[in-house]
Order: sequence, then C-alpha cells, then structure tokens
Amino acid sequence: MQVKGSVEVIPTTFSYVFSPYRDPIARVSPGQRVVIHCEDAFESRIQSARDIPSRALAGAKFLNPQTGPIYIEDAAPGDTLAVRIEDISPTRDFAISCLIPYFGGLTSTPITRTLQAPLEERVWLWRLENGHLRNDELQLSLPWQPFMGTLAVAPDLEAISTLAPGPFGGNMDVPDVCPGNTVYLPVWNDGALFYTGDTHARQGQGELCGVALEITSKVTVVFDVIKAKEVSWPRIESADRLMAVGSARPMEDAARIAYAELVTWLEADYGWRRLDAYQLLTQAGGLYVGNMVDTTYSLVASIDKHLAARRSS
Amino acid sequence: MQVKGSVEVIPTTFSYVFSPYRDPIARVSPGQRVVIHCEDAFESRIQSARDIPSRALAGAKFLNPQTGPIYIEDAAPGDTLAVRIEDISPTRDFAISCLIPYFGGLTSTPITRTLQAPLEERVWLWRLENGHLRNDELQLSLPWQPFMGTLAVAPDLEAISTLAPGPFGGNMDVPDVCPGNTVYLPVWNDGALFYTGDTHARQGQGELCGVALEITSKVTVVFDVIKAKEVSWPRIESADRLMAVGSARPMEDAARIAYAELVTWLEADYGWRRLDAYQLLTQAGGLYVGNMVDTTYSLVASIDKHLAARRSS
Amino acid sequence: MQVKGSVEVIPTTFSYVFSPYRDPIARVSPGQRVVIHCEDAFESRIQSARDIPSRALAGAKFLNPQTGPIYIEDAAPGDTLAVRIEDISPTRDFAISCLIPYFGGLTSTPITRTLQAPLEERVWLWRLENGHLRNDELQLSLPWQPFMGTLAVAPDLEAISTLAPGPFGGNMDVPDVCPGNTVYLPVWNDGALFYTGDTHARQGQGELCGVALEITSKVTVVFDVIKAKEVSWPRIESADRLMAVGSARPMEDAARIAYAELVTWLEADYGWRRLDAYQLLTQAGGLYVGNMVDTTYSLVASIDKHLAARRSS
Amino acid sequence: MQVKGSVEVIPTTFSYVFSPYRDPIARVSPGQRVVIHCEDAFESRIQSARDIPSRALAGAKFLNPQTGPIYIEDAAPGDTLAVRIEDISPTRDFAISCLIPYFGGLTSTPITRTLQAPLEERVWLWRLENGHLRNDELQLSLPWQPFMGTLAVAPDLEAISTLAPGPFGGNMDVPDVCPGNTVYLPVWNDGALFYTGDTHARQGQGELCGVALEITSKVTVVFDVIKAKEVSWPRIESADRLMAVGSARPMEDAARIAYAELVTWLEADYGWRRLDAYQLLTQAGGLYVGNMVDTTYSLVASIDKHLAARRSS
Repeated sequence: MQVKGSVEVIPTTFSYVFSPYRDPIARVSPGQRVVIHCEDAFESRIQSARDIPSRALAGAKFLNPQTGPIYIEDAAPGDTLAVRIEDISPTRDFAISCLIPYFGGLTSTPITRTLQAPLEERVWLWRLENGHLRNDELQLSLPWQPFMGTLAVAPDLEAISTLAPGPFGGNMDVPDVCPGNTVYLPVWNDGALFYTGDTHARQGQGELCGVALEITSKVTVVFDVIKAKEVSWPRIESADRLMAVGSARPMEDAARIAYAELVTWLEADYGWRRLDAYQLLTQAGGLYVGNMVDTTYSLVASIDKHLAARRSS
Repeated sequence: MQVKGSVEVIPTTFSYVFSPYRDPIARVSPGQRVVIHCEDAFESRIQSARDIPSRALAGAKFLNPQTGPIYIEDAAPGDTLAVRIEDISPTRDFAISCLIPYFGGLTSTPITRTLQAPLEERVWLWRLENGHLRNDELQLSLPWQPFMGTLAVAPDLEAISTLAPGPFGGNMDVPDVCPGNTVYLPVWNDGALFYTGDTHARQGQGELCGVALEITSKVTVVFDVIKAKEVSWPRIESADRLMAVGSARPMEDAARIAYAELVTWLEADYGWRRLDAYQLLTQAGGLYVGNMVDTTYSLVASIDKHLAARRSS
Repeated sequence: MQVKGSVEVIPTTFSYVFSPYRDPIARVSPGQRVVIHCEDAFESRIQSARDIPSRALAGAKFLNPQTGPIYIEDAAPGDTLAVRIEDISPTRDFAISCLIPYFGGLTSTPITRTLQAPLEERVWLWRLENGHLRNDELQLSLPWQPFMGTLAVAPDLEAISTLAPGPFGGNMDVPDVCPGNTVYLPVWNDGALFYTGDTHARQGQGELCGVALEITSKVTVVFDVIKAKEVSWPRIESADRLMAVGSARPMEDAARIAYAELVTWLEADYGWRRLDAYQLLTQAGGLYVGNMVDTTYSLVASIDKHLAARRSS
Repeated sequence: MQVKGSVEVIPTTFSYVFSPYRDPIARVSPGQRVVIHCEDAFESRIQSARDIPSRALAGAKFLNPQTGPIYIEDAAPGDTLAVRIEDISPTRDFAISCLIPYFGGLTSTPITRTLQAPLEERVWLWRLENGHLRNDELQLSLPWQPFMGTLAVAPDLEAISTLAPGPFGGNMDVPDVCPGNTVYLPVWNDGALFYTGDTHARQGQGELCGVALEITSKVTVVFDVIKAKEVSWPRIESADRLMAVGSARPMEDAARIAYAELVTWLEADYGWRRLDAYQLLTQAGGLYVGNMVDTTYSLVASIDKHLAARRSS
C-alpha cells in the first residue's frame, strides 16, 4: 500500500474506555501516515524513583489513558482494520516501572483475592540513552525494543475499560505489537474507532510485575481497511510469522482461543484442512504469554509463514 | 565435569509411574556417560498412518512407558540431580503423531469434560531423513530438534503416573529438555531414581494436539550430584539462559510457579534482591508454554544468563 | 421502609448493555413500589419445542434484553442501592429452556474453545400450572421458584454486555435474587441506573446447560438508597442469611471474591476481627455455584445471620 | 444389607499416601460393622490455642495421617466399593482449627504462588460439649455435624499424597461424607485397599481457611462390594439425594466432572436420555464447593432422588 500524506494526532484529553460512545478526535484515511501522541499508563504522574505509586496515583480515578478514537474513513462493520506500525519514538528520556499494591503477576489482586498484605511499593527509573534503557541501581542496560501495550477498536455496543484486553485488542501487552508488524482487528463500528497508548520501551513475556518500561511517545501507523473480511480476534503479521492473540481467563482458555484462531486463519487463507492445521501447529507452533497480569491474560500463538505456505522453513 | 567411562541401559520392561517403590534397573555413577534406550509414548503400537489409535492402543492399560528407575550413586535426599543431555539418537526412521479421542489442547478431555463427541481419529507418519521429518501428505518437512518429553526423579513417598508433570519433572513436554542443556531436579530418595522416555523428534510450544513427533531413541546423559543443594522445581540451563519449569492448573498457576522459582534462583545464586529480580524478569524474562495438554500444564520462565550476571546482553 | 405509592415500568425497547450512556426510561423514588415488565432472554423468539434455537435466534444480534435504565432519585456515586424484591409474576403460561450451539456448562464455548462439533439443539417447553412447571415429555413437574437472572446498575464509565455478571451485578443467574430477599449494589452513577430482566421460573445451581426456565414477567421491587455506604460487589440478604456474590474466572477466583467480601461485611457491620471472620466462615459458611456458563462464573458465599451476630443458630 | 458381626481397626502407624504398595492393616468382610480409629490431620501435634502451627508441625514430614489400607474381601478391580457410614464418635473433647502459613483459601499457596508474606498464624480451640462446638473467644457455639474429610481407595498403580482428592476419593473435605450416607468408590486393586481419616466435627462449604474442626475419632462403617459395576468418580447417596464429586483445577473443571458424572448416573441407573438429564440438572441440580483449598478442588453436584425417579419432589 502506498502512503498518501501524513497527519498528526495530538490529544487534548484521553479516554479510559474503548468506547463507541465517544466522538472521534481525528479522521484519517487508509494509506495516510498517522503520527499519534501517547501518554504513559500513569498519565506521567510518576516521575522519579522516590515517588510512592499509591500516593502519586491517588488523584487518578482511572489509569491507562488512550489517544482516540480515531475514525478511519471507509471502515465499516464486517471489515478488518489493518494497522501497520512504522515507528515508536520516545517523547521523554526515561521509562518508569513500579510496584502498585495488589497489582502484578506475583501478588494477590482484586480478582485473585487473598487477605495478605500487599508487597512493598517501589519505583524503578530507567534512563533512555544510546538505544538502551539504563538503571543505575540495578547496574543494568537493556535494549530499546518498543511496542504499543494497548491498541484497540471500539467494541460492538460495549464500552470496555482500557485496562482490559479482548477480541477488540485492547491492553494486550504483547511485544509483537511493534514497528515492522501489522495488527489486524475486527471492525464493529463505522470508522472502526481506533485507540492506542500505553507504549513500552520494552517488556519481558508476561509483563510480570504488571508494569513494563512505560514511556510517553509518538507512534507512527498506516491504516488499511480490508473490506468484507471478518476476523474474530486480533492477529499480528511480521516479516516471517503469523500470530493470533487470545485473551481470557483462565490462561488455558486464552491459549485455546489463540491456537484455534490460527487454525481458522490457516484454513481460510492458506488452504489447510482443519485437522492438518492442528497437526502443523502441534509440531511447529509457538505459544508465549504476553501478559499474566491484566483483567484477562493474553497469549500469542504463532506459525512460520513459510510453513503456513508449505515451503519448508 | 570429566566423563568417566560409559554404561548402556537397555530396559526389559517399562514403568508407567515415577515411583520410589520400584527396584532400580541400573546403577550408575556421577560422571559416567549413560546411554538410555527409550520406547515411544505408545510403546510402538502405532506404526502406520492407517492405524486407528483407539484400536491400536486398546490393549495398553497404561501409556508413556519410561526407562527406569536408574540409581545414581551418591545422590541422597536434599541434593540436586544435574542431568546433562548430550545426545538423542533415533532408533527407527520415522516419527508418529495422532489424534486420540478426548486428548489434546483443542478438544474436551476427562478433566475438562463436555458431552460432545470426540474429534475424528487420525495418524500422521513423518519419515526421518537427512535431519528432517517429512510428511508427504502435508507436503512438509520440519527440522530434527529432538528432546525428552519425559524426564523425572521418583517423588517423595508418592508414585505418580508417567502422564503427569510436577515438581519431580515428569511429562513436562518442554522442548528445552534437549541435547546441550542441563536439567536440575530435586532428590527425595537415595539414588535419586531417575526415569526418562517419551522422546520427541520435535514439537511446537504447547504440544497442541497432545502428541508430538514420537520416536524410539537412545539418549545419552551424564549425571552430576550437587550435594546439599535443594531446588523445589525443575530447572534447565542452556548455554545462554536460565529456565524454571512450573507445572500446575490453571495455567496461570504454572506461570506463577515458574517465575517465582526464577526469582528464587536469582536471589540465591546471583545476588539479586527479591524485588529487583521481580523487576528484571518483568522487563527481560521469557515465558512460553511447554504443554497445554497433560494432567497439569508446564510453563517455562527464563532469563538471559548475561543479564542474571548483570552483564548487558 | 414504608412503601410510598407505586409506579409501573413498561419498556418499549430493551437494552443489551448495562450502560451509563443510555437515557433513563423511568424515574422512581426510594420507597415506591415499582412494577417492571421484563422480556425473556430470547425476546420471546422461542415459543415451541419444535423451534430450532439457532434459526429462531438468527435475527437477534444480541440476547438477554433488559428493562432499563431506571433512575432512582437520590442515588449518587458512593451510595449503595438496596433492591427489595417483593414479587415476580409470570406474564405467560409457559417457560422455555433449550440447547444453543457452543453455549452451556458441558460443551465447549467461544471462551473454552475446541474443534469439536456442537451438541444437538433442543427446546424444552414447560407449562406453568398450579405453582409448578410441567414438561410432559420428561414426565416431570418442578416447583415455581422464580428469580431475576439479571439485575444490575450501570458500571463506572463502562458499558457491559447484558450476558456478563460482575461487580455491578448483571447476569449472575443466582437463585437467591428472589422475592423476599434484598440485593445491595454499588452506585457509580447519579440515579444508580438500574436494569433487570432474564427472569427464571426456576433454575438449579450452576444453570448447567446455560438456559434456565425462561419466562416473561412483571417483577415488583422497592428501592432504597443507603447514603455514603460503599460495597464493592453485590450482596444479598434474606430472612436468615447474609450472602456475597463474586463473579470471575477461573471459578476459584469467584469463590475467593465472594468469601473475601463476606469477611469485609462481617468486619464492617458485625464487629468481627478479620481472622476470626475467616474462621467463622471456614466452619459455618455456605458456597454454591450460581452460574458456570456465563462470561464469568458467579459464586455465592453465605453465613447465617444469627451466627454473624454471635447468637448460636 | 444385613450387618454380620463387627471388627475394630486400631492403627499402630499411619499412612501419608493412598497407595497400593502398603500391606493391609486389617481384612474385613462386606457386611461387617467396622469401627476405625482415626488420628486428626495434625497427628495431635496441636493441642492448645497457644500453639504456633509452624513450630508444632516442624517435626512432621507429612500431614493428614490415614488409617489403612483395609482389605475388603471379595472386592476386585472393576467392582464398586460401597461405604455406608453409620457413626462418627469423637475420641477427645475438643476440635482444633488453625492458620498455617501459605495454606488456605484466602492466601497465596505453593500452587497459587506470590511473593507476599504469609498471614499471621493462629489456633482456635473449640470445646465439644452437649452436641455443640464452643469457642469462648469467639463467643460462639456451632452444632456437631461430623464427617470424614478423607476417605479413599488405593489408586491404580499410583500412590497419591493423602492431601489430595481425586477419582479415588481422598481428601475431598465434603460434608456429605457423613453418618447416614453411603459413598461409592471405584475399585482398582484386590481388596479395594480402603483408607480413611481427617475427621471433622463440622465444616463450612469450601473449608475456607483450609482447616476444619479437626478431631480424633472412631468411625463406624459397613462395606458392600457391588460386583462388575464401574464408577469413574466418587458418588454419595443420602436418604433423598444422589451426589457426584468432581475434583480438579481450575474449579470449573471440577464442576464439569461432577455434573457429567451425574448425567452418566441418571443415564445408566434411572433411564434418562443424556440431553434430558442435562435439562433436569439445569433446572433442579445442586452444586456446592466441598473444598477450595486442597491440591485440587472438590465440588459436589446433586439431584433429588424423587426427581431422578421422575416422581415430583
């Protein structure tokens, strides 16, 4: 697809729901280069390793502010929205991670509830320099590998918290939502109504403590609308892999969704018979955990595109 | 560790439990090269793409035969057994996968039970040639990447089905249990009482249909005993990564175990403070699904050894 | 509370979301007797044992129509809404249950997904006569024990499908939401914005096949607003028991929420110390499954009111 | 069945596994009245409200001692063992409950693992007097409603920790395993190899903190062997209900097993067609949580016997 001009989206307020009930903050065309400014998950309320998250966030009724909705011309219910991610550029020189009471993968939470005291609160500040994130206290540098933690379309009739992942995409926290890759999302509303934010300088698989290396940023995407093509769950395509994202609880349900969607993809677009696709994925599929901390867990099932096309990899 | 001679273990019968109640079939010393002959998970009852699994297996009261127990001299309760895997050589020229009624990741099972009819039965035979597995019907070749699906020590007091993974190792179906890597297991009994089998020519993450590319084989390992060092769950070390395996249901519990064990490892052996290890794994950890089909699911959490040692990767 | 007059709510359209974005269809005062007309979960599309659910429902984009929102004067964020249920009267002489493809407790579903074919479709029509439900084919009569399957307030910022239960109440399918009992719900919006529907002539614990004995009805309730009292999850009070409803996946998370809420209730209103309440519920609590079929499962934890008040039961 | 004499079983040692590898401590005949002496779950190591559980239990390598195995004449693989429970008599005048670190329903555990500190340790001593349990500190009396927390046959080939419930029965912690009821268990070994213990003076549904009102006792049972009749999971029959117990994780899997077994029972013994049984249980089944704290959770599905027999209840 040829890129046709560019447009910049600078939000004045943010959304805390993926909602069909909000007015678009911008209208763009398929094929345009769209530069979207994003806040971090804490709306920049945490700025220092000395901050105490529960105090710094006390004034925030909601977290994970999103830029959107962006109306994409020509997108209509029943279509698929393709989001080609071209770039993520930081708009500050540091990233933040922290421990928030009763939030994370190795603590009880409001959903997996216990009577225990929370873990200690902590903030880690990582300086961004020369393509790395540097934390002096940990004496460690990690490579800059940015991605969008959250990316969604508005659901059908529902308005869902921006903390949640689901069939609409959302807060998947999947590192493959990154520059170079294309994400496919179902369209339920005219204009698709796209939201994004929660950009991460990097993150391990699972987003273990619940907070990746959170940054403010400008992301550059190009939208395409695939008419009259329906997908049920988010899909990601990289140079060499097909990926499907399932989000559910318990985690095995997310795994089943992700792999079942990949079976569907192989059947519809690559000519595989259902049980043969099941066999292929058994012997050659990938399955990693995107997040084990959000309202539902996100798992990514994948297959090499050469194998999908029956060319030995 | 220097290798001191070699010994071959050729079983005459197999075990269907990881059990402290069976007599050792061999006694070996730490440092010896041990070549262990293994049956496939179906005890070679399925030999052709025309076999019908439920009939071929009708005479089998139990599945997943293991070679063992092997008594390792000097191993005593409270020690850790290190199993360095040197080689897996096939002892036939094909691998088998199949669909077994009510077994697998995208079907209901005796644990996740529904009233639905089972999926159709199928067998896929993959010929082993030139370092690849070839299935003509699928028109596909996949690389030979063998590993031991099952590897265990006898539990403490319990005798557990060889279909199960757990703290003792067992039927983890984790592709990183492969040549070049070392697996660490807790020791609860004198001699550790080691079992292995269920070798796979290869497998995707999750072992989706429940049956990898099953082979008969000879595996070559060298045991070492680490005195007075206790681990709670299996660990794997490769040239560049530390890995911990958690097995549980639901799958998020396996994820929590795997990452919590890795936190423990970083604290004990690499000088990390607990919450800093939590932070490191959040930003740089790996988390993939070994199996989503066995009696409990196995997940593998990992970290780069350079990062564990605070040398930037 | 003294009842002050009565008002009847007859909907002209229905809502398929619990939403703060819809205009109230009625405004009522605390203390008024409110008679609310409700459709059944299928909007009366299934009328006969010969109907085929997937065809009868083909024209329905959404299921589980709700009457609402009803604006309750004086209710404001931070209050608790008390809903005293006085009566449920049927408005037709039969109830419907059926099997819908990929919906129910003993089938795979879009969340717990498999590749298996769905169960056969079926409709059971139960005639309502003399206080019993009668199915001739099954040669069985069951007592009329009606309740509201769905009852909710609008969430905070979100609009949630009426198929879902949650902190806002919703599609809990809990038989104790019945005449004689009072349900307490959090208030996040001015007027609380109350919804109800999905009335059931009766239902077993778990709502096993996903479809109870569905009826159209008039329900009579009286609202009360408890100012500046916050509850986190729905509570139910009967003549002799305190109940808390937790809705989550996996089911153990729903159990934890339900019992933890009951601990909180005993602490705040009955003077129990936290760990003593934990002990009381261990020895005398009740815990049953409301639904094992909806988007999240609902469990009900309970305790005898005499015990809560330390009067031996 | 007529009772033929009686026999008393007084153990000299206890078993911490349900195992086919142990020699019977007694041999009894079907129809004999068998009086079995049982230790409490802590082998009487906790005797006072001032004890600190982790210290009192420091010398115990294993918990939940069982009396057995008891060999029942005539029982052979493929049969069903019926255990009619006649009486549970306390052999001391108090019951114990306590909080053990990282054990219970509202704390993280070694399976559902977090990095949080454990809850405070506590012991509650309840005096048994006049058919009630009395705790002075709580100012509360609860009725004596005893049952066997643990009751099992030896599994097939496996030896399983007495902390676990499963198809063999085991540590189900289901209050309906009580005097007046009959429990049916599968038989996998000659003589069935019966174990019991962990008697409780009473317990709420879920056994919330993990420790019921633990007592030492004499239980009186009468065994019957139903030849050539196979059940897959434990069943319980009371004067008026049929019950099936499913034990699994996550909890929804236990629910599915329990209800599916009840469908099977209605089909085999009461002439129900499968989907009609599914309908009956949807509208009239019961489903409560026995334990939410053990290695797997136990749920009890039930139906009124009059309804099973199509006589209106």
